[in-house]
Amino acid sequence: MGDSVREVVVVGSGVAGLSAAVYAARADLAPVVVSGDEPGGQLTLTSGVENYLGFPEGVGGHELVSRGRDQAEQFGAEFVTGTVVDADLADRPFELTLSSGETLRARALIVASGASARTLGVPGEDELMGYGLSTCATCDGAFHRGNDVLVVGGGDAAMEEALFLTKFADTVTVAHRREELRSSGVLARRARDHEDIEFRWNAELAELHGSPDDGVTGATLVSHPDGYPVRRRDDGESVETERLDVQGVFYAIGHTPNTAFLEDTPVDLDPAGYVDADPETTATAVEGVFAAGDVADARYQQAISAAGTGAMAALDAEEYLDERAAAAERARDSPPTPTA
Amino acid sequence: MGDSVREVVVVGSGVAGLSAAVYAARADLAPVVVSGDEPGGQLTLTSGVENYLGFPEGVGGHELVSRGRDQAEQFGAEFVTGTVVDADLADRPFELTLSSGETLRARALIVASGASARTLGVPGEDELMGYGLSTCATCDGAFHRGNDVLVVGGGDAAMEEALFLTKFADTVTVAHRREELRSSGVLARRARDHEDIEFRWNAELAELHGSPDDGVTGATLVSHPDGYPVRRRDDGESVETERLDVQGVFYAIGHTPNTAFLEDTPVDLDPAGYVDADPETTATAVEGVFAAGDVADARYQQAISAAGTGAMAALDAEEYLDERAAAAERARDSPPTPTA
Repeated sequence: MGDSVREVVVVGSGVAGLSAAVYAARADLAPVVVSGDEPGGQLTLTSGVENYLGFPEGVGGHELVSRGRDQAEQFGAEFVTGTVVDADLADRPFELTLSSGETLRARALIVASGASARTLGVPGEDELMGYGLSTCATCDGAFHRGNDVLVVGGGDAAMEEALFLTKFADTVTVAHRREELRSSGVLARRARDHEDIEFRWNAELAELHGSPDDGVTGATLVSHPDGYPVRRRDDGESVETERLDVQGVFYAIGHTPNTAFLEDTPVDLDPAGYVDADPETTATAVEGVFAAGDVADARYQQAISAAGTGAMAALDAEEYLDERAAAAERARDSPPTPTA
Repeated sequence: MGDSVREVVVVGSGVAGLSAAVYAARADLAPVVVSGDEPGGQLTLTSGVENYLGFPEGVGGHELVSRGRDQAEQFGAEFVTGTVVDADLADRPFELTLSSGETLRARALIVASGASARTLGVPGEDELMGYGLSTCATCDGAFHRGNDVLVVGGGDAAMEEALFLTKFADTVTVAHRREELRSSGVLARRARDHEDIEFRWNAELAELHGSPDDGVTGATLVSHPDGYPVRRRDDGESVETERLDVQGVFYAIGHTPNTAFLEDTPVDLDPAGYVDADPETTATAVEGVFAAGDVADARYQQAISAAGTGAMAALDAEEYLDERAAAAERARDSPPTPTA
């Protein structure tokens, strides 16, 4: 890679970054994709994707990502491992420092670093993620027709997921670590009133049971009348234990956008850390920096919409580079008049 | 279908409509898709799609659309043929009159009726569309490495397509029916100065040569020193004829959004006829009516971004329906206080 300046660097290798890379590579911009902490992004945490248009039989999350990478590489995209640890976006070309120590310079930057679902770190979690444990009811709810499922969380997103899951699951249990919901709106009321939704108050998930072959077979909850039972248990207090027979567990405890590397740059972030991009295009507060996918989308966070905005960001980057090249041509053709 | 009220009706069966149908069907909303004048939409005019993420070997336009339809049907979407000839969106439920005479009532409506590329109606056009004749350089330019190609049009879009095509084609000829470009900006200047772009002024395409098997093999232009040669020829004036050896022809004479059925409704359209949708969501000026795909996107018009906004529109429609159902529940639980 050396000292050369690249036309386009894409940060992130989930569907948004891959789609941006396909478009940029097809436009002969030879993009470099920085793979990031979770190469392939959130999709690699799902076992099957049924709602990405074009795959009537569904497609594995890993498979879709690997097909996307093949596609981008085929047109000339280059992938480097590691994450961006520092970004200097005040000067041109932009300069990125990678976790490998390497420096990457770029005329245009596409931020597609995604948002990571928060997890709990309980036993069984790593093993069962994508095998009955999910962070996305919209993605995986339909796999649970006739099942009993558990939702972990107490915010609006948790209520939405629980209500959505009643369309498929026989019963939905919601475990919340306090004794009231954070949300008091319509969603909370509807969830509390729903005959197929049960609540476990002051309860937290302590362990997941099952295996990749069998999927999730159960979940152990702990509870304490004053709430936050896991913290209390870890502090030596005694807690009650309950084993639930569930075949699906959904975490709805929020996402964190992966924008730490942008915090000291002029790119605007919203209070939750998401990139504030122009909603009509993918432009950010810094000319030449574009954003695509979940990192700029707290609302939808779907694979197909991330791929869509990835393509848009690459087209925006291409237009930006064309305009800069044209401006440079003009400056060359009309040298400044010498002062007399 | 009868008199029942559907939860969601999707107008249009291109990728945007199909993706909306997949999402709405998976959310158990049993959507009805009105296929429209060109079932499958613009994609059916392309022979191969290389930039839709997930298909490293490319996918046929028809094939992608048919896979999408299978996917939507599998989750319970229903398709009806015909177009919407009249829409009453002032009252609830919405009421659509189809070209078959049938009436469709819906609580939520997703407009995904697309934009149709303008065509010329010259001999060879119907036969060669998708076989060397294209309305999208971004989609099909990369198939023409080392070829000679023709671009028809004189606006900014034509200049952009011509410049883009120089990345692949050996020579790009632009035929414009007047003797100057509509555009006088940077793009026009760059196109005029480009060594691989030649112009044919006062010239129009009169005929395309080739076959689906061989692709485009040539194009016949007519020209007249005062411009608009085809009209003059049709009026009996004599014109000059030139045969170009080209393997690709790109129409860049604009798109027309398919929104005639919305003209007398409260849905806002922009001056060019595109649906004015909230850029942060897919909401239109009418609550419960959402827009997705090219019909609301004059800027990008890509398959993958259309599929992305289709999914978003279905999620927005689902949220809208949930909120209405909750409001109806509340109204039922708290009857208005009788006036004393």
